[in-house]
Amino acid sequence: MAARHRTAAKRIVIWGRRPEVRLRLAEQPWVDSAPDTLAEAVEGSELVVLAAPVDKIIALAEQAARHVSPETIVTDVGSVKGELCRLCDAALAGHGHFVGSHPMAGSQKTGWENGSPDLFQGRVCFVTPLPQTHEPSVNKVARFWHQLGADVATVSPDQHDEIVAHISHLPQAVATSLCSFLAQKNASWRNYAGGGLRDTTRIAASDATMWIEIFQQNRDEVLRALRQFQDELHGMYSAIANREWTEVRARLERGKAYRDGFRP
Amino acid sequence: MAARHRTAAKRIVIWGRRPEVRLRLAEQPWVDSAPDTLAEAVEGSELVVLAAPVDKIIALAEQAARHVSPETIVTDVGSVKGELCRLCDAALAGHGHFVGSHPMAGSQKTGWENGSPDLFQGRVCFVTPLPQTHEPSVNKVARFWHQLGADVATVSPDQHDEIVAHISHLPQAVATSLCSFLAQKNASWRNYAGGGLRDTTRIAASDATMWIEIFQQNRDEVLRALRQFQDELHGMYSAIANREWTEVRARLERGKAYRDGFRP
Repeated sequence: MAARHRTAAKRIVIWGRRPEVRLRLAEQPWVDSAPDTLAEAVEGSELVVLAAPVDKIIALAEQAARHVSPETIVTDVGSVKGELCRLCDAALAGHGHFVGSHPMAGSQKTGWENGSPDLFQGRVCFVTPLPQTHEPSVNKVARFWHQLGADVATVSPDQHDEIVAHISHLPQAVATSLCSFLAQKNASWRNYAGGGLRDTTRIAASDATMWIEIFQQNRDEVLRALRQFQDELHGMYSAIANREWTEVRARLERGKAYRDGFRP
Repeated sequence: MAARHRTAAKRIVIWGRRPEVRLRLAEQPWVDSAPDTLAEAVEGSELVVLAAPVDKIIALAEQAARHVSPETIVTDVGSVKGELCRLCDAALAGHGHFVGSHPMAGSQKTGWENGSPDLFQGRVCFVTPLPQTHEPSVNKVARFWHQLGADVATVSPDQHDEIVAHISHLPQAVATSLCSFLAQKNASWRNYAGGGLRDTTRIAASDATMWIEIFQQNRDEVLRALRQFQDELHGMYSAIANREWTEVRARLERGKAYRDGFRP
């Protein structure tokens, strides 16, 4: 949708695993064609975007590799990049160029019906080349996301995984735990929820299967961030328990300064 | 503003501690007068609303008690109710009727300039009578908040404090700790923040002084909720660490079911 809207592509070919989805996609004004096989979809493409759950992307890259031309660039939108980029790079070697991407867009809702032409507008998109990645292809992928309205950030796959463990996977584990905890206390209390609880827990409504895959794929980094956050939270607990109000204030003020510094 | 807009009051008299605030308030179209003393402001009033930080409300109730008539109802908007309601009830005894209130409205922004006529629309407002509280006054206070658009929930002051420790004070401690933690890791990562982190941390931008008072006033309940939440979070950590993916899924799904059940 975004590529059509921003004329970032001359021709848009979509393939999906389920036939009923392909039939509906073929009818969309932003789709040029939705053939029945992955082979037909990628043949002759300049850029292939693999948009699938993290654990399916590698198999798709291996399949696509057999049908692309040596100039084809293959990218993806997976939320964990380290192992994925190394395996996809190996899969494409000698067939085309793999460049990992991760647009930080979307919501707790999944499926193409929840997309929009402005989905990437003003959102960050990571582009995650390996040292050996073909540089002109990196530039092309960065240009593609930029054309869709995203702010591109180029980092290594491992650096990416450390960053998102902190700014995306940790908040998810926290929001999920908050809701899972409150569900066991007295679920009816949610009827009293103000804007604070609503916002703090919004992402807890995300798809469970997607998040298990992310926690599996980025397990080490997630555990490291969670362990350190548990220490931070325990520090807050101790400060309140010991009536160390200067310490409580320092934490509230450090948190506020950090949050006030977010881009508008 | 809301009382004028919804014609919930014939005459609106405001008093504020700082003279410059009173001068600016006197000019507002929704204010009938803004006298220089609390005594002048409450004399002849049917309903007095004490809107001040939690630790200032009791002193204001004691002051107001000397100038109200026996039929006057005094309420407040403090976010912690147990001790406050007992002390304000004692202060007003023989002078007027005290009924505690806590409208769950507002944002991280403080000050009358951030109010709006629709502030209470669709938000929950707790009304927290003690067993001895004058029942017709409870009904009047409930009617007042209902007229301003709020959904009224009547609970005891102690029950209120347990509920808000879980649905408001715990989320604040968590959001603050998340930001305080990330500030120490690498503050520049916030530039990559997606909607998830933004929402999860929004309330971390709240006023530190207001929150210290709340944590002080509701310390026992906050500590109890925090301690139990730390156990929940540690359970999530262990499940991921031990690759108990069925347990991780159960937590993600319990959290999602809880969050999906929020009123729209």
